[in-house]
Amino acid sequence: MPYPSDLEKLISYYQKLPGIGEKSAERLAFATIEFSDEEISEFSATLLNAKKNLSRCTICGNITDKEVCSICSNTTRDQNTICVIEDFKNIAAFEKSGKFMGTYHVLNGLISPVDDIGPEDINLSSLITRLSSLTNPELILALKPTIEGEATTLYIKKILENKNVTISRLAYGIPIGAEIDYLDNVTLEKALEDRKKISE
Amino acid sequence: MPYPSDLEKLISYYQKLPGIGEKSAERLAFATIEFSDEEISEFSATLLNAKKNLSRCTICGNITDKEVCSICSNTTRDQNTICVIEDFKNIAAFEKSGKFMGTYHVLNGLISPVDDIGPEDINLSSLITRLSSLTNPELILALKPTIEGEATTLYIKKILENKNVTISRLAYGIPIGAEIDYLDNVTLEKALEDRKKISE
Repeated sequence: MPYPSDLEKLISYYQKLPGIGEKSAERLAFATIEFSDEEISEFSATLLNAKKNLSRCTICGNITDKEVCSICSNTTRDQNTICVIEDFKNIAAFEKSGKFMGTYHVLNGLISPVDDIGPEDINLSSLITRLSSLTNPELILALKPTIEGEATTLYIKKILENKNVTISRLAYGIPIGAEIDYLDNVTLEKALEDRKKISE
Repeated sequence: MPYPSDLEKLISYYQKLPGIGEKSAERLAFATIEFSDEEISEFSATLLNAKKNLSRCTICGNITDKEVCSICSNTTRDQNTICVIEDFKNIAAFEKSGKFMGTYHVLNGLISPVDDIGPEDINLSSLITRLSSLTNPELILALKPTIEGEATTLYIKKILENKNVTISRLAYGIPIGAEIDYLDNVTLEKALEDRKKISE
């Protein structure tokens, strides 16, 4: 049945979202038209506002509604320790742990020659500028352990070789709670390689 | 991490939708802010329009952007054969089969004493009015085979007892393609009860 055109349009917009197929989009649209008038007009305004007001932090590349994000502008955070991540969504995971009191730098991508993404296509030059104004900064590379992540890690290490920057990466190893039997070979190999003396 | 307030708001609206949890809502919101300016403003306008322009067909209760829906206003359809359904979403299933050329009547609910839903709470009175203007109408009850569906079916049958209306219900039986081994007892019982002579 052809639905009324406004409903069809709403369904087609929901279908543009990731992981939403035709059936789900229909379900979302049907639920949406049950919203109250106030909810609908607020939802509609929120869409416009989110697009209009959100931009990238000029320091770290995080998403923000100001010029500088809430983390970069927080003076209690260690500006000398910078955790380099692929995507601003990664920040939530670190912040939930509550253990990291430094700042972040969002690359917004990883170097990937296969996809024709070079160092100039990701948010790297601003990292270099940022580092040059700091004294003895520490860089923690928290990029995913894939070819692209490794390539980006190596590239950053290389360009900062003669600069006064301490560079580390997240530890590889067994995730807490994992069954050793079910670990993949590479993780086990890395865990062996990076083994730590217990007496320490 | 507290996201910027516009993003938080967008996430909270997506979370109001059925089947969308916190993680999914975040994913949808992140994807939404990647939409182009035009897409966002159209999406936003579509939400308002869908709410504003959609209402119930005054004849059958289907969702429509006119006073009378496209099915009721289609003169090639048999107005004397009315398929009674619980929800306007059921119409799509019938229309996809392309085999039903009658019209529909959307009850918008089923009688359910447990949930305190009586005959007056569903779209029944308009069905009675509708039937009274037709000569020898046929009513096909296509309600789901649950206690509520059965209760509604029986109620409709009872109130139309002395009226000149042919009432039928959808056949119960084995769904096409099903494995007999895996059928539940009730379906098998119904399929036995409603068995049809092959010679027919």
